[in-house]
Amino acid sequence: MTTDFLVGQIRKKESFLCIGLDTDLDKVPKHLLQEEDPIFAFNKAIIDATHHLCVAYKPNTAFYEAYGIKGWQALEKTINYLNSNYPEIFTIADAKRGDIGNTSTRYAKAFFEDLGFDSVTIAPYMGRDSVEPFLAFKDKHTILLALTSNKGAFDFQTKMVEGKELYKQVLEISKTYENSENLMYVVGATKATFLTEIRNIIPNSFLLVPGVGAQGGSLVEVCKYGMSDNVGLLVNSSRGIIYASDQENFAQASAEKAKELQQQMSLELKKR
Amino acid sequence: MTTDFLVGQIRKKESFLCIGLDTDLDKVPKHLLQEEDPIFAFNKAIIDATHHLCVAYKPNTAFYEAYGIKGWQALEKTINYLNSNYPEIFTIADAKRGDIGNTSTRYAKAFFEDLGFDSVTIAPYMGRDSVEPFLAFKDKHTILLALTSNKGAFDFQTKMVEGKELYKQVLEISKTYENSENLMYVVGATKATFLTEIRNIIPNSFLLVPGVGAQGGSLVEVCKYGMSDNVGLLVNSSRGIIYASDQENFAQASAEKAKELQQQMSLELKKR
Repeated sequence: MTTDFLVGQIRKKESFLCIGLDTDLDKVPKHLLQEEDPIFAFNKAIIDATHHLCVAYKPNTAFYEAYGIKGWQALEKTINYLNSNYPEIFTIADAKRGDIGNTSTRYAKAFFEDLGFDSVTIAPYMGRDSVEPFLAFKDKHTILLALTSNKGAFDFQTKMVEGKELYKQVLEISKTYENSENLMYVVGATKATFLTEIRNIIPNSFLLVPGVGAQGGSLVEVCKYGMSDNVGLLVNSSRGIIYASDQENFAQASAEKAKELQQQMSLELKKR
Repeated sequence: MTTDFLVGQIRKKESFLCIGLDTDLDKVPKHLLQEEDPIFAFNKAIIDATHHLCVAYKPNTAFYEAYGIKGWQALEKTINYLNSNYPEIFTIADAKRGDIGNTSTRYAKAFFEDLGFDSVTIAPYMGRDSVEPFLAFKDKHTILLALTSNKGAFDFQTKMVEGKELYKQVLEISKTYENSENLMYVVGATKATFLTEIRNIIPNSFLLVPGVGAQGGSLVEVCKYGMSDNVGLLVNSSRGIIYASDQENFAQASAEKAKELQQQMSLELKKR
């Protein structure tokens, strides 16, 4: 998917919502456990109920790997279902991969070609030749971890490296990678100061922002300081939407939560 | 597996060789492609031919994910085969994972409990709460990327952070993590100066050293500057061993290559 198409979808749906499909069988409604593939049954119901309110879905691969072969089958069914029924949706494999060159190429093929995701999240620690194999795929997007939303982010990401924080070095240096126009960034910052400085380095790149909602971030702040001319934001919510209810009507409940966020996003888009 | 048991195996076999099972169907002998599961058939043959010469096997998960469900099945069969037939072997899932706390817990369960690996490689970028969920498993080992052997290592890992290189900060800070006694480290350095400085920070921890052989590192240098009182080294070779031949006798050829390295390692162990 091209970035232009994604921006078009955001304008049309008045939403830059990404829904995290972090599907946990301990949390899904009990009646689904009788299904042949309860993970996929849950995802399908959530997708059918919310697809018009969001522009992206982001399964975190850890939740699928935790169920072994069955988990991978559910992930495969989920991405196939999205690509077949809602091809206008931007899909993110939240995999946080990264390895030496020829090994990264294998991950890139797995996620972009075999599974057919539009994008994948990547850890930057191993540097240029661990990232560029992903960037080589046309109209596919590599979402690099820059500043994450967890406490451990302060262990290394915010440490000063040659006069600026490590996560800013990641932003700066990754701009020099080949095909860097295919980069997006995970930015867990919801604080104004962080976002302003990030936008000084990457004025137009898309940011995938976790931590709005359940993790306490403010959507208004994120938009005020993080929105670019082409919107440039995907704001993710996982648990707050998909586990809105554990009753029979769970999908409808998730749609209501998604609708709340979509309406706030619509207001923010109109401010511009 | 306890570290003491691993050290005992190293002494007994006079080997600290780890064989990387980076199985690529484009490179395995052609006659194996007729097998029902050629990846597993290849791995099984290599394992049966080399298990007495090495103490560890390290499948890189990228090579298995690249084949989708079939790849994961082959990985599962491989680890089950190792655990059933050669339980004395230390197993490493070279997965380079890492995510926020509760998500890392899911990866840890997948690799340690469900698949039954002794250890898994982890990227440090997300900090403490992305690593500690792995460290919580008794007699399981978390192998943190410190200094990798690829060119991209110089993008961030060797940058100066508060007076010392980032990879040294990773070593220092990770020592303060809960259950840090379960840490090992990926150290791609084969240069004397690097290894000496690394040993000053972590005198006893096990180092997983890639890049000896095919990538040009010197085993003698690694041992001279990296070996600790309890050996503290696992030296990996992948392609140099497993692709020694693409003929019918490939397993025997791989055993010959493994034997060469084992004999060099035996000499190094006797120097102590």
